[in-house]
Order: sequence, then C-alpha cells, then structure tokens
Amino acid sequence: MATRGMLIVLSGPSGVGKGTVRKAMFRDNKKRDFVYSVSMTTRKPRPGEVDGVDYYFRSEQEFKHEIATDGMLEYAQYVDHYYGTPLKYVNQTLDSGKDVFLEIEVNGAMQVREKCPDGVFIFLTPPDLSSLKERIKGRGSEDSQTINKRMVKAVEEIKMMQQYDYAVVNDRVFLAVKRIENIIESEHLRVKRVMTQYEKMIGAVEK
Amino acid sequence: MATRGMLIVLSGPSGVGKGTVRKAMFRDNKKRDFVYSVSMTTRKPRPGEVDGVDYYFRSEQEFKHEIATDGMLEYAQYVDHYYGTPLKYVNQTLDSGKDVFLEIEVNGAMQVREKCPDGVFIFLTPPDLSSLKERIKGRGSEDSQTINKRMVKAVEEIKMMQQYDYAVVNDRVFLAVKRIENIIESEHLRVKRVMTQYEKMIGAVEK
Repeated sequence: MATRGMLIVLSGPSGVGKGTVRKAMFRDNKKRDFVYSVSMTTRKPRPGEVDGVDYYFRSEQEFKHEIATDGMLEYAQYVDHYYGTPLKYVNQTLDSGKDVFLEIEVNGAMQVREKCPDGVFIFLTPPDLSSLKERIKGRGSEDSQTINKRMVKAVEEIKMMQQYDYAVVNDRVFLAVKRIENIIESEHLRVKRVMTQYEKMIGAVEK
Repeated sequence: MATRGMLIVLSGPSGVGKGTVRKAMFRDNKKRDFVYSVSMTTRKPRPGEVDGVDYYFRSEQEFKHEIATDGMLEYAQYVDHYYGTPLKYVNQTLDSGKDVFLEIEVNGAMQVREKCPDGVFIFLTPPDLSSLKERIKGRGSEDSQTINKRMVKAVEEIKMMQQYDYAVVNDRVFLAVKRIENIIESEHLRVKRVMTQYEKMIGAVEK
C-alpha cells in the first residue's frame, strides 16, 4: 500500500506573485513528484485558458452544488465569482501516494489548515519584507498617515504569516522555486511523516 | 544586532557513520554558514589528531571541573573516558548569529534537546532502515532468536528516532550530506524562526 502523499499549500498576500511562482514550478514539463491541483471557478475562461488545465470552469449552480455536498476542500467568493479546490481529486491523488500542490488565497489556505493540519503551509512574502523598516518608513519623506497605513498592512501580513510553517521570500522567481523545492524534500524527511511507515513495517514483521 | 544562530544536532545509532557524514560536510574548506563545534574528551589523542581540531583534549580533572561548573552542554562517559560539548563556544557562536553543528551520541542529543528545544535534531539512519523487514527477517534462514534480537534493536532505533525532527538515511555519504544541507536551508525559512526578526523590525518602527 502506498504511503499517503503530502499536501503542499502555497499562499500569500495578493499581488505577491503566487501564480507566477507556481507556474514556474510546473513549467518545462519538469518531472515532479507532486501534482498541481487545478482550481474550480465560476468565472468565464479568458482567451487561451483551457478547462481542466487553468481551471475547471463551472456554472454557479454546479459550484454551489459542490459546496452543498461537501465537495470543496476550500472556496471563496471574489468579485462575484467563486473559486475553490475540489476535494475529490486532492484525496484521490494523496491516496495514490503522490503529493498535491495547491496555490490558493490566504482565506482558502486557512480553511485547508483546519481540515489538513499535517499539510505543509508556505507563505510567499513580498521581496521587501526583509527590509520591512525601509518599506514602512519609506525614504523619510512620507507623512505619518502614509507610514501608518503601511504599518497596518505589514502587521496584517505578518499576522497571516504566523499561521504558516514556512516563509519564502519572492525576490527572484527561480530562487523562490528552489526554496519551495527544498522545503518539500526536507518535509519528506520529517520523523512525524516517516514514523507511520516504520511502524507499519514493524507491525508487518510482528505478525 | 545579529539574529541568534540555529543549533543543528546530528546523531544516530552507533556505527551509522555520523563522523564520516560530518567530516564530509566540512571537507574541502567548503564555505559553510554553520560552524562545527569541537567536542571535549579525556581520552588521549590518536596519531595525527590535533587539539582544538579533532577534540579538545583535557584531563579528567579539567573535564569534571567543567561538568561541576555547568560548562557542558552535554556529556557522557564511554569506555572510561568522558566526551562532551563545551557550552561556552556554542553560546558565543550562536550569539554571533552563526549556526552551530554538533555531531554527538544519542544520549548527548537528548540532553541538548532538553536544553535547546528550538534546535534542529537530525537522526542518521542505517541505509537499510528503509528495508526494515528484510533486515529483521534476513534471508529466511535465521532462527527465531536471531530475528527477535534484530527486532528489538530495530524497535529501539525507531524509538530513538521519535525524539528527532528529521530522519536522514545514510545510503551514500554525499546524498546524506545533501539532505542535511537541504534541511538546514529549509529550517531557516520556518516561520517560527523568522517571526522574531519581523517582530523586532515592527517594534523598531513603532518606537
């Protein structure tokens, strides 16, 4: 029997470049041990977008039916449209022993955290979160209201971050990708993840 | 002010190759962001061993004085000699913002775990722990007493492993090194480790 796969969740504040990093991870047909879980949405496909590749494009009625029948791992409504992750595909893939990679909004990520506390939660941060002070205070010419607004936003982001396991700075896309790859590899070596395997083997011998 | 460094502890059952992996990590003057903490011992230097490089070679009286004055992070007695990690150097290095790498016995590792729960604890496993069943049952020709003895040893090792954060298989030395490097990099991205930094920055702005 295959060991259940690992759920990897990439999220972060809007505009941080989650989609770009995720696309870079799956580009060039690079062989991956993890599978991207395509989201479902009620918005219309844009030119070039393919159903089942970019999104599962569904009617609002169909989407609401999934919600009502507990078919969504997470979902949210943005600008009149629903977006979410269908549970069935995620579970099937995890059961087959493969890891699943989700790239979702922060609200969705928190829904997933509740349902799958064993997942790996990665928060993508803006490139300048490491120079937070400069970012907030600016070049010294900003008024106190501007600084205060930035401060509130920074504190909000950091509070979000606290709910995650890892913080990855998106300074360069290929660096962010490398860091995420490292995290996934290392997480597979965590004792809490390999213990079950060993215990099963011991159990198999004892019988 | 520098952020305090991270303590990395490599341990594992005796004979697993901890020393070989550790030496490979620090070979070739490879630039490392972490520093190896040289152990202290009361045994005599072997030909070629250098004081302060291989070990700090000290008399039993000096060693016992360190123990009595809380100068040891961990220590143990093996075959009439004392081995241990002097606390002072570890603390100085961590305070300077550098990571410290310890390669120690399992008993010592558990002493460190109690004192530094925030450390990264890596358990090096024998190459065949992944084929545990074959290892225990052998080729089918062993009597039940032999199988039972192996079983007890395997269960012991797994129980040890449970106290650690990561399990790294020592199948090939360069692969074990790569895995440990990955773990160290990823651990630096853990939210619990970067939060303090962000909080400090926020505090600095608020003042």
